[in-house]
Amino acid sequence: MAKAKSWVFTDARKNVWIDSKFLGHEELGVSDCTVSKRALRGGLQDGVDIIEVTNGPLSFAVLPTRGMGIWRGSYQGLSLGWDAPVRGPVHPKFVRLEERKGLGWLQGFDELLVRCGLDSMGAPGEDTSLDNNGNPFTVFLTLHGRIANLPAHYVEVQADAESKTVSVIGHVDESALFCPGLRLQTTVTVAANSNRLRVADEIVNLKSTPSEMQVLYHWNFGPPFLDAGARLLAPVIEVAPRDRRAAESIKEYDAYLGPTSGYVEQVNFYDLAAPPDHQTAVALKSAVGDKAVALRFDKSQLPCFTQWKNTAALPEGYVTGLEPGTSYPNPKRHERERDRVVKIPPGKTYRCEMTLEVLSGKEQVAAVEAEIRNLQAGKSPAVHAQPIAKYFRV
Amino acid sequence: MAKAKSWVFTDARKNVWIDSKFLGHEELGVSDCTVSKRALRGGLQDGVDIIEVTNGPLSFAVLPTRGMGIWRGSYQGLSLGWDAPVRGPVHPKFVRLEERKGLGWLQGFDELLVRCGLDSMGAPGEDTSLDNNGNPFTVFLTLHGRIANLPAHYVEVQADAESKTVSVIGHVDESALFCPGLRLQTTVTVAANSNRLRVADEIVNLKSTPSEMQVLYHWNFGPPFLDAGARLLAPVIEVAPRDRRAAESIKEYDAYLGPTSGYVEQVNFYDLAAPPDHQTAVALKSAVGDKAVALRFDKSQLPCFTQWKNTAALPEGYVTGLEPGTSYPNPKRHERERDRVVKIPPGKTYRCEMTLEVLSGKEQVAAVEAEIRNLQAGKSPAVHAQPIAKYFRV
Amino acid sequence: MAKAKSWVFTDARKNVWIDSKFLGHEELGVSDCTVSKRALRGGLQDGVDIIEVTNGPLSFAVLPTRGMGIWRGSYQGLSLGWDAPVRGPVHPKFVRLEERKGLGWLQGFDELLVRCGLDSMGAPGEDTSLDNNGNPFTVFLTLHGRIANLPAHYVEVQADAESKTVSVIGHVDESALFCPGLRLQTTVTVAANSNRLRVADEIVNLKSTPSEMQVLYHWNFGPPFLDAGARLLAPVIEVAPRDRRAAESIKEYDAYLGPTSGYVEQVNFYDLAAPPDHQTAVALKSAVGDKAVALRFDKSQLPCFTQWKNTAALPEGYVTGLEPGTSYPNPKRHERERDRVVKIPPGKTYRCEMTLEVLSGKEQVAAVEAEIRNLQAGKSPAVHAQPIAKYFRV
Repeated sequence: MAKAKSWVFTDARKNVWIDSKFLGHEELGVSDCTVSKRALRGGLQDGVDIIEVTNGPLSFAVLPTRGMGIWRGSYQGLSLGWDAPVRGPVHPKFVRLEERKGLGWLQGFDELLVRCGLDSMGAPGEDTSLDNNGNPFTVFLTLHGRIANLPAHYVEVQADAESKTVSVIGHVDESALFCPGLRLQTTVTVAANSNRLRVADEIVNLKSTPSEMQVLYHWNFGPPFLDAGARLLAPVIEVAPRDRRAAESIKEYDAYLGPTSGYVEQVNFYDLAAPPDHQTAVALKSAVGDKAVALRFDKSQLPCFTQWKNTAALPEGYVTGLEPGTSYPNPKRHERERDRVVKIPPGKTYRCEMTLEVLSGKEQVAAVEAEIRNLQAGKSPAVHAQPIAKYFRV
Repeated sequence: MAKAKSWVFTDARKNVWIDSKFLGHEELGVSDCTVSKRALRGGLQDGVDIIEVTNGPLSFAVLPTRGMGIWRGSYQGLSLGWDAPVRGPVHPKFVRLEERKGLGWLQGFDELLVRCGLDSMGAPGEDTSLDNNGNPFTVFLTLHGRIANLPAHYVEVQADAESKTVSVIGHVDESALFCPGLRLQTTVTVAANSNRLRVADEIVNLKSTPSEMQVLYHWNFGPPFLDAGARLLAPVIEVAPRDRRAAESIKEYDAYLGPTSGYVEQVNFYDLAAPPDHQTAVALKSAVGDKAVALRFDKSQLPCFTQWKNTAALPEGYVTGLEPGTSYPNPKRHERERDRVVKIPPGKTYRCEMTLEVLSGKEQVAAVEAEIRNLQAGKSPAVHAQPIAKYFRV
Repeated sequence: MAKAKSWVFTDARKNVWIDSKFLGHEELGVSDCTVSKRALRGGLQDGVDIIEVTNGPLSFAVLPTRGMGIWRGSYQGLSLGWDAPVRGPVHPKFVRLEERKGLGWLQGFDELLVRCGLDSMGAPGEDTSLDNNGNPFTVFLTLHGRIANLPAHYVEVQADAESKTVSVIGHVDESALFCPGLRLQTTVTVAANSNRLRVADEIVNLKSTPSEMQVLYHWNFGPPFLDAGARLLAPVIEVAPRDRRAAESIKEYDAYLGPTSGYVEQVNFYDLAAPPDHQTAVALKSAVGDKAVALRFDKSQLPCFTQWKNTAALPEGYVTGLEPGTSYPNPKRHERERDRVVKIPPGKTYRCEMTLEVLSGKEQVAAVEAEIRNLQAGKSPAVHAQPIAKYFRV
């Protein structure tokens, strides 16, 4: 087997830093692929590093400065991501997480994929854990945790001529004295000319004691995949609304409105069906059914699926979030009470792998629809008309 | 009409960025004017972009990194601005707005002109608005809001040979998901050899629903315009002290002390006279009366005028603030109760225009004094000895 | 006397900035010494300026971006400093001091020497002082204050061929309107081939009124000086545990464990013996006794000595802090009540000088042990079994 080629862009410990770089398909040794790295300047994006990858039809941009999130992408000219009310990508130096009662994270939120976590994610709230003196210590956890606003200390690009794949690798530490010590090691991979992008994450407990961990993959889609009449395809065992607002439309949980001024978000919590190999899938299908995005993931790794409907007017951010997670994005204490917070042994790793696939044309869309119908296996979903205690509020 | 020349320095969306630039009068096509752009390095100013403009006698520096504030200026060698206890200009990355119970804004405060706003300004305090679920949501608003610590995503210089003017244009967004969405579009203009600088702001509601807006133009002057015996010239219908401290000197509301160790700030609220065209004016006249700065603005745009007397010792910051605003700088909830918070319809714009004029020589000063006396039109000002509920505290 | 050579690296007021610089021994005019200045890139260290100095056997790195702290050093290959759970040095733009109930400072804590102060230091807590209106004003003081997360606005290197010394000088302001106004002027000096590093600080009250000031020199050592069986050498008049946890091991206050998973920090407060010239000393001696680090300082300047035992597992940060200070690192209000907060008159300076010496070989170690025994002068230390009110908790 031929050894993969490798370019280290950042290694803070070794003082390796490449300011900007272009790798053409010849240098990569993978046809139709290119990788480009540079720093953005001006406005809120000043100082943000961006790595742009294309494999021919599929392009996307990884943000080492923002916890290796995926800013946005496109496939055959179809836009992946959404138009957020903030012009990003936003450098963490402009994000004050504590602001607006712990909602400061929203000031930087505009990605296609943003990870929420790693010590905590979900709604802000008080949480009691033990301090370094072993005494109960109440902290205020801000929305969706810290990982999206931490920079990678290690960034590498790999290209493998044999498998015709290009990968972007990044390591991000969420660690400090008397704080949790978790490392994200992510690998984002595409094959030449593929319509798929694979995210493989390892989350390592750096400490010598067990560590709690939460992660949620906040995938966000706007037009052209989201439109009036778009539908969520999902193999649903059970779905429940988060609150009374979500309950208003729970019967049409899978349906999306067009941009609607004054729309208030609706969040639904799902238990998805999965076969014995745990591989499940969801998709967002446009109204006409000629395009879709599908997410495939392992339910044993990411057992909780959340749907965020935010079909507000375009200036407010017309978007839906498809969010596989280790738990639901409720305040951490609620998830802990329901035994949904992961605990990683010292030095051990928690793996999360998923694939984003872009489907173009009715034939491809019909195939993924059949695949998900197959996962459903003819069983009727249990649709709770009201919030249930299992998920959050009663 | 000849088309104005234009140079785009920053356009974050289009990845336009000019690191440094000098435009001489020949390139500008405007005699005696130059424009120079660069990034400051070291200390708290590290990474701050600065655009220095001169028109011959009048020079000033605009700060795209700090919400297009005007750092300082000079006219025929007379200094415009003040010596703040912090060495600025301060990059927003060093400003933690939430610190000291919401007074962190002070860590970056040293400008000649700093805008306070745009969602809120004034003293810190709790404020209840509706959250994205339509429920009452109480946020803690920090001192003077966010706009001064947000960078411009668009910066342009224009030069017009016909009118012999040079303008610096900047766009700054204060916007995020589930947050207000307001855009400042400012144009700062000088004509060659003029003693005037014009600020024309458009504040746009980017959202599809009505948006509250507050803005206050915090113009700050120290020596040589402020000195022992300097006077505020203003066409006063009514003036009231903010609190008991201000009430101590309300009879001499227009008089200034020299640098006074231990001096505690005094703030007075004004209702100014204005003719049917709304154009009013205030000025700060030095003791001898041979120099002054005058602000002219439209009372229908900026109905509330606040005077900040802070004649502390020089190391503490010897300064007065002349502050036209859409409201007074009280906590937002108080201003809302008194119906002084602007509401901008979706997609609409609120305009604020003002002129700073520097007057040199007793003749010029006497002319502005007569102009303001004329606005007063012989009516006696109502001077409230104590705070009144109309403005704030009783 | 020959004039010392000087290189100004940063002078923000005069817009002096040197991006990177190497000064060899010939240029310095001091044999075996070099100075190197550059900016770190990538990860949390992105944008941090670092000045590396070597005098032959002794090397260390000063961080202008982090309040002139000393990141780490080495002597004849022995590492000075510790392996913190955060990969630093950390740029202040990534440090949110208010987070985790005022413990955000920990996100940037990984230095050999970090100064805590200058308006406040110690544990977070509410503190009531007078506001700019002269009214009582309660602020929340975050852990260890602001100075370590403020950048130097002035940085200079001096070399003196006569005394064969190289110095790094830095000025850092902790100042803003209505806030304390304190300036740190530090000079870190080494002589060629010496095993000593000298820190001479001047802290200036920039204001026209008296100013409170607190400073603690948080010197942190891990292996090879800290190991199982390492001992603190100190001339102890009195030692008391901070709390019940520290009381558990107070009888072995001078003894250190090896890396211990689950270890909870122990903090002891000391009153040290000092001769009439006030020069006292402490040292950390490795178990075998073939290496040690000694700190010498003036007890009249730094009357309070704190020992921080944190012999946790290596990933948690195996470290001890030897911390001479103007007070103990309790919440400021407690130290004020015990009359241990310094008050600097207007314009005046408080001096703190100390020396770090690295001892290699049993002979050198025995000599410093004898020196400290001599300071003890045969008197038995008073070892309090429980916390006492004089220091903090009862």
